[in-house]
Amino acid sequence: MGYTEQDWKAINTIRLLAVDATFNSNSGHPGAPMGMAPVAHVLFNKFMKFNPKNPKWLNRDRFVLSITPGHPEAHDTPGVEVTTGPLGQGICNAVGLAIAQAHTAAIYNKEGFNVSDNYTYCFLGDGCLMEGVSGEASSLAGHLQLGNLIAIWDDNHISIDGDTNVAFTEDVAKRYESFGWEVITVSDGDNDLDSIEAAIAKAQQSKDKPTLIKLRTTIGFGSLQQGTHGVHGSPLKADDIKQLKEKFGFNPEQSFAVPQEVYDAYGKHAAEGAAAEAEWNKLLDSYAQKYPEEAKDLKRRLTGDLPEGWEKALPVYTPADPAIASRKLSETVLSKVESVLPELLGGSADLTGSNLTRWKNAVDFQAPATGLGDYSGRYIRYGVREHAMGAIMNGLAAYGTILPYGGTFLNFVSYAAGAVRLTALSQVRAIWVATHDSIGLGEDGPTHQPIETLAHFRALPNTMVWRPADGNETSAAYYVALTSKHTPSIIALSRQNLPQLEGSIIEKAAKGGYVLHEAENADITLVSTGSEVCICVDAVKYLKENHNITARVVSIPCTEVFEAQSKEYKLSVLPDGAPILSVEVMTTLGWERFSHEQFGINRFGASGPYKDKFEFTPEGISKRAVATINFWKDVPNVRSPINRAFQQII
Amino acid sequence: MGYTEQDWKAINTIRLLAVDATFNSNSGHPGAPMGMAPVAHVLFNKFMKFNPKNPKWLNRDRFVLSITPGHPEAHDTPGVEVTTGPLGQGICNAVGLAIAQAHTAAIYNKEGFNVSDNYTYCFLGDGCLMEGVSGEASSLAGHLQLGNLIAIWDDNHISIDGDTNVAFTEDVAKRYESFGWEVITVSDGDNDLDSIEAAIAKAQQSKDKPTLIKLRTTIGFGSLQQGTHGVHGSPLKADDIKQLKEKFGFNPEQSFAVPQEVYDAYGKHAAEGAAAEAEWNKLLDSYAQKYPEEAKDLKRRLTGDLPEGWEKALPVYTPADPAIASRKLSETVLSKVESVLPELLGGSADLTGSNLTRWKNAVDFQAPATGLGDYSGRYIRYGVREHAMGAIMNGLAAYGTILPYGGTFLNFVSYAAGAVRLTALSQVRAIWVATHDSIGLGEDGPTHQPIETLAHFRALPNTMVWRPADGNETSAAYYVALTSKHTPSIIALSRQNLPQLEGSIIEKAAKGGYVLHEAENADITLVSTGSEVCICVDAVKYLKENHNITARVVSIPCTEVFEAQSKEYKLSVLPDGAPILSVEVMTTLGWERFSHEQFGINRFGASGPYKDKFEFTPEGISKRAVATINFWKDVPNVRSPINRAFQQII
Repeated sequence: MGYTEQDWKAINTIRLLAVDATFNSNSGHPGAPMGMAPVAHVLFNKFMKFNPKNPKWLNRDRFVLSITPGHPEAHDTPGVEVTTGPLGQGICNAVGLAIAQAHTAAIYNKEGFNVSDNYTYCFLGDGCLMEGVSGEASSLAGHLQLGNLIAIWDDNHISIDGDTNVAFTEDVAKRYESFGWEVITVSDGDNDLDSIEAAIAKAQQSKDKPTLIKLRTTIGFGSLQQGTHGVHGSPLKADDIKQLKEKFGFNPEQSFAVPQEVYDAYGKHAAEGAAAEAEWNKLLDSYAQKYPEEAKDLKRRLTGDLPEGWEKALPVYTPADPAIASRKLSETVLSKVESVLPELLGGSADLTGSNLTRWKNAVDFQAPATGLGDYSGRYIRYGVREHAMGAIMNGLAAYGTILPYGGTFLNFVSYAAGAVRLTALSQVRAIWVATHDSIGLGEDGPTHQPIETLAHFRALPNTMVWRPADGNETSAAYYVALTSKHTPSIIALSRQNLPQLEGSIIEKAAKGGYVLHEAENADITLVSTGSEVCICVDAVKYLKENHNITARVVSIPCTEVFEAQSKEYKLSVLPDGAPILSVEVMTTLGWERFSHEQFGINRFGASGPYKDKFEFTPEGISKRAVATINFWKDVPNVRSPINRAFQQII
Repeated sequence: MGYTEQDWKAINTIRLLAVDATFNSNSGHPGAPMGMAPVAHVLFNKFMKFNPKNPKWLNRDRFVLSITPGHPEAHDTPGVEVTTGPLGQGICNAVGLAIAQAHTAAIYNKEGFNVSDNYTYCFLGDGCLMEGVSGEASSLAGHLQLGNLIAIWDDNHISIDGDTNVAFTEDVAKRYESFGWEVITVSDGDNDLDSIEAAIAKAQQSKDKPTLIKLRTTIGFGSLQQGTHGVHGSPLKADDIKQLKEKFGFNPEQSFAVPQEVYDAYGKHAAEGAAAEAEWNKLLDSYAQKYPEEAKDLKRRLTGDLPEGWEKALPVYTPADPAIASRKLSETVLSKVESVLPELLGGSADLTGSNLTRWKNAVDFQAPATGLGDYSGRYIRYGVREHAMGAIMNGLAAYGTILPYGGTFLNFVSYAAGAVRLTALSQVRAIWVATHDSIGLGEDGPTHQPIETLAHFRALPNTMVWRPADGNETSAAYYVALTSKHTPSIIALSRQNLPQLEGSIIEKAAKGGYVLHEAENADITLVSTGSEVCICVDAVKYLKENHNITARVVSIPCTEVFEAQSKEYKLSVLPDGAPILSVEVMTTLGWERFSHEQFGINRFGASGPYKDKFEFTPEGISKRAVATINFWKDVPNVRSPINRAFQQII
């Protein structure tokens, strides 16, 4: 309240900075920042708690821009909380940040010590609201009663195809009410700063419902093209900029002008933020005296490091141990490490009993009022919402106190592809527990059988795709996944039992690839992953007995990690001299990188016992091994595919 | 109305068939068919218009099962309209079928001749409703006022994680009202057949709104475990089956029993359906006399064949023609062929001006009442709903009269990955116009730059990924895409201009790969796609002038189609004797299949002029060509990667 000319000066400064920036780089999206400048001003000057000097302060309010202004990337730009741009992602990230805050508060806050009480604000547009992923996350946010989440919808009636009435005429406010949100309407977001302020203040008071503020704005406010999609994704013309600057009382000859009083006003609020952080630091000091264990744990979490010695909790197996499905081995890892890694916060997209993602006696993360759990709970029932789960994990990981994992079938990680690539691009740590990892998945048919999935995610930069062959490899996969602060992992796990292999060792498997079964003067190397490795081991015997062929076996549970090893090491695993045959029960695409010949399935799966149908048996592998040896026998000193003419751009 | 014991006998027969089938195959989902048997009976016995003897009759009512009973696959099972299973897809397919019906009626119906007036019914469950894709499609269906669509929600409160109150507590009815749907509640779907019938009858009368019937049921009705997730995805136990059969008055010793009166009842309705088709055939005969052109066109469309000579409309280019962006070349193809291919029905996910998917003077597919278009319109404003667009295209293609295409950025086809793999598995024809196909896409940063996308979809079986290098290759891509009745295509198109290449010919490009630039005794072959082919052509000159190296250039606009050629042909394109270097400005994964060395980008993109940054210039290519030649010079008679030790399983 009590807004003056100076506020409008600040608002118009923001608008013109957006105009000048996009004009000067001849690219970008001026319309949204011009339309949203009033609310941005009110939010950042009256409400947002943050210290520009320390954009990583834990208890800062989070701000997410879930609209596409060209596009914010978290790992490049300090102060950007999450990497958005692809529509719908930002609001889901905000849900993740809000879950993280609620959980952090439930774990650490004590009587008199509100260590965590920040809000998460999110700007989002019509495009975000049309994307299904935003609906998934918003439905879950309502279910979880996240009162700490405030989303502000830039209701400007414009998307790239023009007026939203060509495709988007639903009643958004009613939809969000149906999700269990508080909805507040501000009918003049261009001019009515008092109503904007009142709406945000009211939203802060909504303690058990997230809030959507429906803010009617004019895209590109002030431009000759205001209110049209002409201002969405390209810079304004020079004459338009001139009239705009004159209209706003700025010098049309100047660019990037920030009047001193605007600097001062924002500087004042920044100083308040710095003071708030100083206050909070004092609070944390007293907290540390009274609750030393909690404080130590919190500080450690913020570094991203795991507690010293945590890895001793990882299970180790010997060949005498029984055959176990790797999804079950994964459950054992989670059950063993959860108590030493309190930052682990997991869940499943409605496949808990299949993914085995929930350790015994886990508490669900639920609104306390439901009686189904508590915000201190570490297991999220995501519902059948894979894409939102992926995007929410990005928000959880960005908050700073949480290490998220989520389960679904490997095939349905594809539903979340849009989020997974942002996890990788954002360089955050998140783990997909991706069970039912092949055509050996049981009653579901080819609609549920992954063929292309591993190739897809192996092609995605900064992503570790693991497919462990047994217990030790599963422990290795988790070891690397949990300790890689800036890389997400997808751990592909079997439904069927797998024997504990002779030669599998956590330390070796953690290199991404290693020699499982060595042999002098081998005629061939079999390279494989996951459930096919044990069949390759059987094929070694079969080849010796039936063809007097000597074969060695290499397991590559993670190609990304293997590729990062030294060339010398990789050549010791896949040496020159004998041909290499890859064996994996899905697409062969990409295996040419590590082998001369490939055995896989370049078609959709089928029902029925797959071993017979597709010949993934010792006999079937041996047949192809013999063909491989015959085919390459005329080539002297067969070259390993590790040898390359030049370095790739990475 | 007037339901008797005989109806319950039929309903219980359905229930027990589901029980026996899943028990005998020891896999499957008995719960949903047991709970939904009453509505299935009412729907199929009172409303559904179909002839079991001819499951392809055009004017049959369509029925889509968007819940997961094990899972229905369209290409395997006559009578299954679309392949569902992955949650959320079926309801989107149903939206596509309903759009197709509305369009077909608008095109063909005449005074006195209702050639098309069928309904589309869809059963869906809680899981489908949680998936974002269903929300996208439902919002669009409401916008489009599809009164011919009737969705029946199996409101059984159960998903795999147990009671839906753990994750799904939104007000679904209110949400569907917010989408502009009619919502009807039936509170006792287990017993109240009259209310079920009344609800469906009322839904049929809703002419400008799709209808959701909220049908409260008990999953696994009659089982000892009824109402729990124990009956969702695994067969009933033997003792449970015994008590169930006794309770329903069936002989517990018998399996798959169908009482004669049940046969008779359904047979009667089937006979009515056959009569209805006979009636319709007569109608079509008179229609053909009065409207011979329309009838001929309709009959042709139903065969999937294109009109004779249509391909003459495809544009042909010579090197004298100017450089043009391939997204623009795509627009030209669409504009040239649209009048000869009236079955083309396109759209874009809110990127019309960027994808260039709308020909001049196209009419939008919109509800006539909006004044924005008409149901005879052939352009769909999908909104920012890529995943729904993909799933809706599957329904459009399944209807029989439509050839769908849809546009978005290549990077965002990934949002629709779940639908795309079902297009491929269903073996239907649909075309993705995927523009902005590389890091050369302009103002958007790495969040919009595809790196892994082509590898992902090249790994997907039965999918043609095209990346044309110029105008003739763009025509070739469309030629093959439009004439491949059982295979979807993704056509990756550039934002930047591409020159018309010497040596590019539609017939050659239609083979998927060909020699663009031949040279005797070449030292190296450069193999490339899309916007990099012209740079390879420049590199040939550069190599000759600077290194006296002779290079040939191969263009492979579609690896899937190229792989289907004879080995002899492929070896003529990629012969033994000289090393091959691939050049594509994204992941190299998969290029090892066609080359010895690979030049690409195995990291995320970046902003700024990409040619300099990543060396995709004649100099940068030449540098790597020299390295390739040096690396392979010691190997006598370098083998083409086309030579393989054995046939892949395809």
